Amino acid sequence: MKNFTSVYDIDNLQKIIAKALKIKENPLGNTTKGKGKTIGLVFLNSSLRTRLSSQTAAQNLGLNVLVLNAAQEAWNMEFADGTVMKGDTVEHIKDAIEVLNQYCDIIAVRCFAGMKNKEDDVNESILSQFLKHAKVPVISLESATRHPLQSLADCITITENWTENRKPKVVLTWAPHIKPIAQAVGNSFTEWMQQMDVDFVITNPKGYDLDKNFTKDTPVIHNQDEALKNADFVYVKNWSSFDDYAKVLEVEDDWMLTNEKLALTNQAKVMHCLPVRRNLELSDEVMDGDNSIIYQQAKNRIFSAQVVFSEILDELDKPQKSQKK
Amino acid sequence: MKNFTSVYDIDNLQKIIAKALKIKENPLGNTTKGKGKTIGLVFLNSSLRTRLSSQTAAQNLGLNVLVLNAAQEAWNMEFADGTVMKGDTVEHIKDAIEVLNQYCDIIAVRCFAGMKNKEDDVNESILSQFLKHAKVPVISLESATRHPLQSLADCITITENWTENRKPKVVLTWAPHIKPIAQAVGNSFTEWMQQMDVDFVITNPKGYDLDKNFTKDTPVIHNQDEALKNADFVYVKNWSSFDDYAKVLEVEDDWMLTNEKLALTNQAKVMHCLPVRRNLELSDEVMDGDNSIIYQQAKNRIFSAQVVFSEILDELDKPQKSQKK
Amino acid sequence: MKNFTSVYDIDNLQKIIAKALKIKENPLGNTTKGKGKTIGLVFLNSSLRTRLSSQTAAQNLGLNVLVLNAAQEAWNMEFADGTVMKGDTVEHIKDAIEVLNQYCDIIAVRCFAGMKNKEDDVNESILSQFLKHAKVPVISLESATRHPLQSLADCITITENWTENRKPKVVLTWAPHIKPIAQAVGNSFTEWMQQMDVDFVITNPKGYDLDKNFTKDTPVIHNQDEALKNADFVYVKNWSSFDDYAKVLEVEDDWMLTNEKLALTNQAKVMHCLPVRRNLELSDEVMDGDNSIIYQQAKNRIFSAQVVFSEILDELDKPQKSQKK
Repeated sequence: MKNFTSVYDIDNLQKIIAKALKIKENPLGNTTKGKGKTIGLVFLNSSLRTRLSSQTAAQNLGLNVLVLNAAQEAWNMEFADGTVMKGDTVEHIKDAIEVLNQYCDIIAVRCFAGMKNKEDDVNESILSQFLKHAKVPVISLESATRHPLQSLADCITITENWTENRKPKVVLTWAPHIKPIAQAVGNSFTEWMQQMDVDFVITNPKGYDLDKNFTKDTPVIHNQDEALKNADFVYVKNWSSFDDYAKVLEVEDDWMLTNEKLALTNQAKVMHCLPVRRNLELSDEVMDGDNSIIYQQAKNRIFSAQVVFSEILDELDKPQKSQKK
Repeated sequence: MKNFTSVYDIDNLQKIIAKALKIKENPLGNTTKGKGKTIGLVFLNSSLRTRLSSQTAAQNLGLNVLVLNAAQEAWNMEFADGTVMKGDTVEHIKDAIEVLNQYCDIIAVRCFAGMKNKEDDVNESILSQFLKHAKVPVISLESATRHPLQSLADCITITENWTENRKPKVVLTWAPHIKPIAQAVGNSFTEWMQQMDVDFVITNPKGYDLDKNFTKDTPVIHNQDEALKNADFVYVKNWSSFDDYAKVLEVEDDWMLTNEKLALTNQAKVMHCLPVRRNLELSDEVMDGDNSIIYQQAKNRIFSAQVVFSEILDELDKPQKSQKK
Repeated sequence: MKNFTSVYDIDNLQKIIAKALKIKENPLGNTTKGKGKTIGLVFLNSSLRTRLSSQTAAQNLGLNVLVLNAAQEAWNMEFADGTVMKGDTVEHIKDAIEVLNQYCDIIAVRCFAGMKNKEDDVNESILSQFLKHAKVPVISLESATRHPLQSLADCITITENWTENRKPKVVLTWAPHIKPIAQAVGNSFTEWMQQMDVDFVITNPKGYDLDKNFTKDTPVIHNQDEALKNADFVYVKNWSSFDDYAKVLEVEDDWMLTNEKLALTNQAKVMHCLPVRRNLELSDEVMDGDNSIIYQQAKNRIFSAQVVFSEILDELDKPQKSQKK
């Protein structure tokens, strides 16, 4: 694994999940693997789970950790190439990346969608700079269109919660929100479910279809009740409109998952990446109910990060010719 | 010790002080005690001493440390139960706590009084959520009504500075301020002094009496000069009115401690928890004078934290039946 | 080395550079040197390179690291002595320093020029408080008038890039900017070049001469083209006017370094401390061209910090009489 920014950086998903579950049994089984190496965790946006789980995973492997809250602690960044920097931006992201190259063996970065310019977000205007200028492996801690460490944790969690001898039905359902939220988690979960041995459907109101480049052949159902039928897992997440980019459209029906709606499923386990707006996206009764495996997902963020860091460290230990650096 | 949020979490104060003083002699005497365990230090408010002393104490014990500046680094928190979260808050504190449960063996939290709603503060609206939802030990790094690690450091400091064969007279004196400051340090010092073998009195202007639930039978004297007579220790601290909640009332006399007032005492040692507003709460001459043991108090914050972390680690090492987790 | 705030804290510059280059060959050659000791990195201002390189250097030596983003994480600081603190400031810097004395074996601080009051900046109003009140060694991470760890990294970089058997010509050239920037890097580079075996000249527009106390006998040339002739190293940096303090004066000629101007030099290596405003201070073509050794400078920040920390640790290990503490 040279970089980790999407499911396509993984050769064998089942094998990675199995490795992660083995790490979970003994997270401190290899505390010297990262010895003498440094991971830089660069946050261009807020983070709780990603921040703490990445630090924990890195520490479990004996990596040095440098955390950089770029906006608050460093300089206002310029992202556009060729600009005459006579405005408010003080440092070009590519110079920051070149400097990180000097200090880090691995660069992990959180860079949300700007939600202003569709093309910028679709083209991953920030992550692409990291991929272009980094001379060390790059790990996405959520980018404009994907949240792969979350999705890997989701796959681990589904695997842990499924023992039946048939494919589970997994439903990704849109949930209400008041602000324009990125499609990253929805896109990413979709992409990873397409690689899992599950029956996967998406349900969202009309106007809220995700980018076709992610949904591909996955069925998109605009009637939530119909989609929820016989679901074994229901993944709840809001996203703003992709077609009418970053807009919050009016929706007639109530899409918030409640116990009443959950009754339509096959006693489905309920998932959410957090943070969640209670009683807007998801009712208290569901959040606090027995079907929620939401905190288990959060826990598994440690092991999705740890297995990825571990794979990257394996790559760094290979003879030079196969390395990026 | 299952949690540490007040003096009532301590079985034997004298024994804890003795342990702390032993740690002070050799802070690095047990650097593997916390090995493989993680403490989360969650700051909902500013901190200098608490931040640095807690990190130092944790490192001295070999604990992994996760620092979370919640407001700046994570998400805007909701504290009210049952709310439909369609406002500015992004994550409910109880979900944040449930996630911290997944990542931490010990959760330490700083959550000041809001100083707006008396009932919320008296009921410890935030700390109580931690005590309710945490599945691991909770340590207060100052809450709405108490600052127990400070008070323990104060007890250590008084112990170090008292060798005479009689009870010292300890005076907690109110000091002027221009902003509404919480009663937490005053309440907490009072509570701990009541457990110490000292003669303890409080002096403050009329209208500034602390909550009776904390002062209990401790004498409250409204004449500062009278209270200061023969004092061996003078603890200086401002707080806003409890009765006329969070108000800064007009005060006629000058309550700032000066050398002139100190002359009334038995060459009293002067204490303050810091930060202090110089020449408002406490004159430069006293701050910088020979009677101040204020920086010694700050130093002892390391050992109050370290002895508490150590006791909690002992508890975690006990067989499962006695643990919360 | 008792403190490190300027080139004058160094006995033998050539020896320090040689030591730093040896550390660069094997940065993890002495990972227990700082064991059991704590360095406090106090940031009163933004930082990327200094922050990450200092943390890396400290970790390489096995030091405990406490990072304090003073403004965001602690309290609003008062810097003036004798003030009645009834305004917005909550803690006096001297009390913060006295507390840091309790927690740290070494204090490193970044305290930029305020750019408002010339006298305050020239007198190092903040750093001088650290030097006065610290009871442990003080390291400057850039102060009002100097940036010594940067300058040491610059000396290391020049040394690495010079193999000819003659003195190199080093030119410090002023660059355009839109905001009033401190003279610290310019002053400091000047001071260090005066100690190096180089031919050193400064070029800047009229009105932009640096403080005579730093430039001393160094030639200051107001014609950039003339100065650049035969340069082997060109150090690019903006600063605001010292005479007309902190003002951005109008400048007729275009002082931005381009390939055209670089053609006047002896294929000079181009240096900059970063962050750089591209196409304002320095053109993309030069930043990204083969002559730039700017990222190498950034890398060498690790080794300038590490050699300084190492020297300070040596001092701390000496018998007590020679120590400050």
